[in-house]
Amino acid sequence: MPAQTDEAVKTSGEKKPAPRDGRRGRKARRAQRAEGHAAAPAFITRRIPYYELLSEEGLQKIDDTADTILQEIGIEILGDPTALDLWRAAGADIQGERIRFPRGLVRRIIQATAPRSFVQHARNPARSVTIGGDSIVFVPAHGPPFVSDLEGGRRYGSLEDFRNPIKLAYASPWIHHSGGTICEPVDVPVNKRHLDMVYSHIRYSDKAFLGSITTTERALDSIELARIAFGQEFTDENCVIMGNVNVNSPLVYDGMVTEVIRAYAAANQGCVISPFILGGAMGPVTSAGAIAQAHAEAMVDVALTQLVRPGAPVIYGNFLSSMSLRSGAPTFGMPEPAVAYLAVGQLARRLGVPLRCGGSLTSSKVADAQATQESADSLTPALLSGANFILQAAGWLEGGLVMGYEKFVMDADHLGMMHSFMKGLPLDDNALALDAFREVGPGKHFFGCAHTMANYETAFFDSELADSSSYEQWRDNGKQDAVKRAHSRWTATLKSYEAPPLDQALDEELQAFIRNKKDAVEDAWY
Amino acid sequence: MPAQTDEAVKTSGEKKPAPRDGRRGRKARRAQRAEGHAAAPAFITRRIPYYELLSEEGLQKIDDTADTILQEIGIEILGDPTALDLWRAAGADIQGERIRFPRGLVRRIIQATAPRSFVQHARNPARSVTIGGDSIVFVPAHGPPFVSDLEGGRRYGSLEDFRNPIKLAYASPWIHHSGGTICEPVDVPVNKRHLDMVYSHIRYSDKAFLGSITTTERALDSIELARIAFGQEFTDENCVIMGNVNVNSPLVYDGMVTEVIRAYAAANQGCVISPFILGGAMGPVTSAGAIAQAHAEAMVDVALTQLVRPGAPVIYGNFLSSMSLRSGAPTFGMPEPAVAYLAVGQLARRLGVPLRCGGSLTSSKVADAQATQESADSLTPALLSGANFILQAAGWLEGGLVMGYEKFVMDADHLGMMHSFMKGLPLDDNALALDAFREVGPGKHFFGCAHTMANYETAFFDSELADSSSYEQWRDNGKQDAVKRAHSRWTATLKSYEAPPLDQALDEELQAFIRNKKDAVEDAWY
Repeated sequence: MPAQTDEAVKTSGEKKPAPRDGRRGRKARRAQRAEGHAAAPAFITRRIPYYELLSEEGLQKIDDTADTILQEIGIEILGDPTALDLWRAAGADIQGERIRFPRGLVRRIIQATAPRSFVQHARNPARSVTIGGDSIVFVPAHGPPFVSDLEGGRRYGSLEDFRNPIKLAYASPWIHHSGGTICEPVDVPVNKRHLDMVYSHIRYSDKAFLGSITTTERALDSIELARIAFGQEFTDENCVIMGNVNVNSPLVYDGMVTEVIRAYAAANQGCVISPFILGGAMGPVTSAGAIAQAHAEAMVDVALTQLVRPGAPVIYGNFLSSMSLRSGAPTFGMPEPAVAYLAVGQLARRLGVPLRCGGSLTSSKVADAQATQESADSLTPALLSGANFILQAAGWLEGGLVMGYEKFVMDADHLGMMHSFMKGLPLDDNALALDAFREVGPGKHFFGCAHTMANYETAFFDSELADSSSYEQWRDNGKQDAVKRAHSRWTATLKSYEAPPLDQALDEELQAFIRNKKDAVEDAWY
Repeated sequence: MPAQTDEAVKTSGEKKPAPRDGRRGRKARRAQRAEGHAAAPAFITRRIPYYELLSEEGLQKIDDTADTILQEIGIEILGDPTALDLWRAAGADIQGERIRFPRGLVRRIIQATAPRSFVQHARNPARSVTIGGDSIVFVPAHGPPFVSDLEGGRRYGSLEDFRNPIKLAYASPWIHHSGGTICEPVDVPVNKRHLDMVYSHIRYSDKAFLGSITTTERALDSIELARIAFGQEFTDENCVIMGNVNVNSPLVYDGMVTEVIRAYAAANQGCVISPFILGGAMGPVTSAGAIAQAHAEAMVDVALTQLVRPGAPVIYGNFLSSMSLRSGAPTFGMPEPAVAYLAVGQLARRLGVPLRCGGSLTSSKVADAQATQESADSLTPALLSGANFILQAAGWLEGGLVMGYEKFVMDADHLGMMHSFMKGLPLDDNALALDAFREVGPGKHFFGCAHTMANYETAFFDSELADSSSYEQWRDNGKQDAVKRAHSRWTATLKSYEAPPLDQALDEELQAFIRNKKDAVEDAWY
């Protein structure tokens, strides 16, 4: 994408803000904000250029290194002979479970049929998201076994803790997707959990969501629930659910993972392929090498989806992390992965596939100054790099071990700011404001001038959490820091939450499917 | 600057990290970090490309709007007939105190003689900073009347509070400049304060610093103290002190300000010209208009320095802020000024002058999650835009009303991360790590491999404040959040502070000058 032009900053596709009606006061402002929320786009369409870190020559070096890794060292797929057969038929060299790929093979397979962009449909069609190209989709935290909040402290997640952030994401205009395992509901048996999780996404939100990937059967159950919700025919032809899978880096795929990938792809549903590399542990300690490795790993399974079903929706993922020199612990929001993200975005565009990056990452245990700094330092590079599907965008704490309630709404507010950032800089006559200068002249203020009155309400992002009041006002309000304000915010949002409508017959069909599935097997807790 | 190439990522000019010597344990690590600090560069040389937000066409629109403002509406300089005479002689149209400028005049004057880059010399030559081009200089907070810390709370600044952050900045490898009014020492009379302030910068640090700009006499005193410290002849030929001035936006310069500018420029010392525009108050509420206004305002006084003394060192400054829709209060770290910064960087490069931007800005009252998020969201755009002199990089709180001790060291640590970020992505054979893949192969870890051992200690930034320990470790250490860790850090740094050497005769000469100046007038407290 070239530097922005006038064309690029037109706000096409978004509803216009509500007209000014002179209403004032807290109630009126709240109503106005609610209208603003209703007008929020289903996803972001970027109006600012990509950040191009590397030259073509630099990108070629990384692509070449990935090719050498694939050709010379190869990748192992453990325990999935079908995947090996697919690769053998495609022209790869198989020895045991090690696959070596002729240079360029994997890339050619991807570029032949993988979509540059696709739509994941939501239960509410107005909330369907385009993934790829200039679109950006913010997705909540994914994977934490624990949750924490200011009053309840840190604890294992429950089904209620799983539903709550679904409700918060549904209520937020700035989170585009309901996510997947926002936390693990550990009060539900491991082998039945996925049913309640997928159901909760359907029941408590109308946004798009992820399904289970922990076993092939659970993946198939997830897809079946989606078929009930969206209809068999519609689901066959459209992406309505996705599975997010990790690689057993370095250079290994567990057969369970490739089976799950094959299940989603065969059903024409989406796969998110995400190598997670902690530099110095699952990959080299230098960023360029870790990028090349992740590139090789991701490309192999992105290509696998195309061997299963050409044209299947798939997202090329990346998750690089650094390490503490003091303890060997993973660190997040550090500068080396931030720089790496910028290069990864270029590699994904070169390949022509949608990109998933991590969002608001941190190793902090609480929603403190460390947490938001690291989160901002992760999110901004992801946005500049051109990431399309930003997982872990809200609620992530403690290196992904914890879904934090306060962090969730703080992140959501920050994601709102990023909506404004990605709009770029309008340069029409109104924005350039020459008439305002003519009206006001030197030494006067712009508070009441016609230009200010006409543009005031849409000029600046209206943060619901940032406190810009005077010290005296802030003191008199009880010296609340950001985390305390966030606590008030999420508790109030849950209190006023109302579920989106769900057809009763459909609801009963979903519940019957779940009941049958649950009744068929004993509970398993591990 | 084009996308980075191999050439661009060579770490020329920086000392190599200390060789590995097998030392371990806390003491050894501390010693190693101290060595690392000693090897820290005096300023950053960027190795990553600029972010180019606007096309040439878009930039031309803003330049044209600024020209129209200057030609049609003009700028007032109140109470400085000498400045008016200079502009009259240069070809401007003067009516009363209103100056209107033929299109392109101001730009031509700047481009004829203003330096693209210059050196501000520090008392320690190894700490002299290059300002302009690909260099980045981090400078502490500037201007707060208040200070705060976790134990002492919020209070007016004292001379001790002024000296302390000078010592913290001196001790930090990531802050390149001693700054100016890090806080107001309100326990010293207003008319004598500047003498103690400039002396403190010389006495307690060896980094470069700013002088007073509150009156012409105080500016001249500041320059005189610098002449004593650096020698008359050296000071005549080199920039050793600078004054940072604001504009009375919109479109007015107080004559006191232009007098001070003329004093610094006449002495061949640096001026930082910084319009501060709160959109909707001192300028239009739309960013493009505010940028054009700031551009016009800054260019006029940048040009004035060149009318006084062609070739005088000068920095084109910019400080745009947004406004809360709820209260009309200024807000910081918001997305609209962040986008604006990116365009301002392009305008400064087009003009060919060094750029000053704000750094770690926030309206938060405390060093909480809001504070660092807003600071990160301000700092990153400044870095991407190509800002050379980043004022307010450490310690800023409450919209600039407060210098926070904890925030100061938190920001310093963050600035350290930015040193790594600005290095970009090395792509040499060692970084691409093919030998590591050959050594390790699929499914093994990289912890002990030769490549990891050889690169481990320089691979990742070593944050002194981020906590990446396990929950259990963190809990057992007292559940310290970031602000508590920062409190321990700054108190320990002050405890171990040792002043840099200062020649005794020189010290006596400085003190004698100050004594004479102080004895000559009564104390004034306003």
